[in-house]
Amino acid sequence: MATLVLVAHPQVADSTTQQFLHASLPASQVTWHELGDLGPIDVAAEQALLRQADRIILQFPLYWYAAPASFKRWEDTVLTRNFVYGDHRYPLAGKELGVVVSTGMPQTAFRRGGTENLTLDAALAPLAAVAHRAKLTWLPLFPVYQFGYMTEPQKLQLVIDYQRYLTQTQPDTLANRQAWFAARLPAMIARLSANQRQTGQLVAATFDQQCDDLEGLTDTLAMIKEADDDE
Amino acid sequence: MATLVLVAHPQVADSTTQQFLHASLPASQVTWHELGDLGPIDVAAEQALLRQADRIILQFPLYWYAAPASFKRWEDTVLTRNFVYGDHRYPLAGKELGVVVSTGMPQTAFRRGGTENLTLDAALAPLAAVAHRAKLTWLPLFPVYQFGYMTEPQKLQLVIDYQRYLTQTQPDTLANRQAWFAARLPAMIARLSANQRQTGQLVAATFDQQCDDLEGLTDTLAMIKEADDDE
Repeated sequence: MATLVLVAHPQVADSTTQQFLHASLPASQVTWHELGDLGPIDVAAEQALLRQADRIILQFPLYWYAAPASFKRWEDTVLTRNFVYGDHRYPLAGKELGVVVSTGMPQTAFRRGGTENLTLDAALAPLAAVAHRAKLTWLPLFPVYQFGYMTEPQKLQLVIDYQRYLTQTQPDTLANRQAWFAARLPAMIARLSANQRQTGQLVAATFDQQCDDLEGLTDTLAMIKEADDDE
Repeated sequence: MATLVLVAHPQVADSTTQQFLHASLPASQVTWHELGDLGPIDVAAEQALLRQADRIILQFPLYWYAAPASFKRWEDTVLTRNFVYGDHRYPLAGKELGVVVSTGMPQTAFRRGGTENLTLDAALAPLAAVAHRAKLTWLPLFPVYQFGYMTEPQKLQLVIDYQRYLTQTQPDTLANRQAWFAARLPAMIARLSANQRQTGQLVAATFDQQCDDLEGLTDTLAMIKEADDDE
């Protein structure tokens, strides 16, 4: 699966959040593409990038409850009516659209009665409407609240969650998460030093065992539910 | 009352809608200010314009369910956090914020289940959130649907409605509408030719009479309601 990350930030190089996310990118199958603030936009090249992607990620800080101006300029220029839905061709149909949005306010601010008095979903409704128009599949938002206040364990968790958001099969079910981790474990263990490798293999064996246990439990649950439904 | 109209359109001169609205401006107390597409923004001058206005009107075509990029650039640049709510000064508090938004789709498209699948209110929720943050008073939207398909009578109505949106005392009650027309009638009659003036004076006399009648009816209605409430 090919993922395209469109980054809109007036100073990507100075943004600790964007730099952290950049350093967190999965090893392969992800294209990181920064949108320029001014200057001409090569519409055909941008449209080609979109066509090649299976999952498109819009990544930006929230400025006045929306994406920064550079994103809007890209949107107004690249997403021509003819490209998106002209002649009923819909070249983006069926691709997935995700949004990685960072905010300076905490999660609690984004709700009715909160400081910002609207949810992120409501703020980004125009983007969801674009997805709807282009027949893109909308992924649940990936918000990064107050990156500057995150602890080290929170940041480590963010790396994993971000990588999964960019590359894991949707929807985000237990089975899809498991498969995602299972696919990555061998390479992770191979990168360990010789004396760490045994621990790595132990972790892998435990993981396999727990996957089997979970599968068994899931089957049992399904059987119980089926019996209940039959009553 | 001083009204500031901020116009964001990539080609104002080529837009028949914007040119029509420009020609429809009331004679006085309105500043028409076009936002540039590129080039530097004089932040202090823009902020001074906002401070001087009693009513601020954002006027733009809807591009991808939001204002065009030039507006977002202006917003991101001029509305600094420090200006809008720094030190709890709120220089825009109590001013009115209106939005004149033109669309290429009909009114019926903007509802759940409509072609666009979201209301204009929902699309412009980010602007309402800005108004909330700046303690501005949000005016109901002024949408202009499919200007190109309007008939002459519809366009004449648009001139009046637009002028009222820019200058009439809010809220848009019958009394406020009456007062707005009454204040303009003498100047309109004065502009008529000598042989039309008598007709004009007849219209004015009828208008006065109907205002008096309406006032009488309103009083009667209030009395009836009071009597009902006492029962």
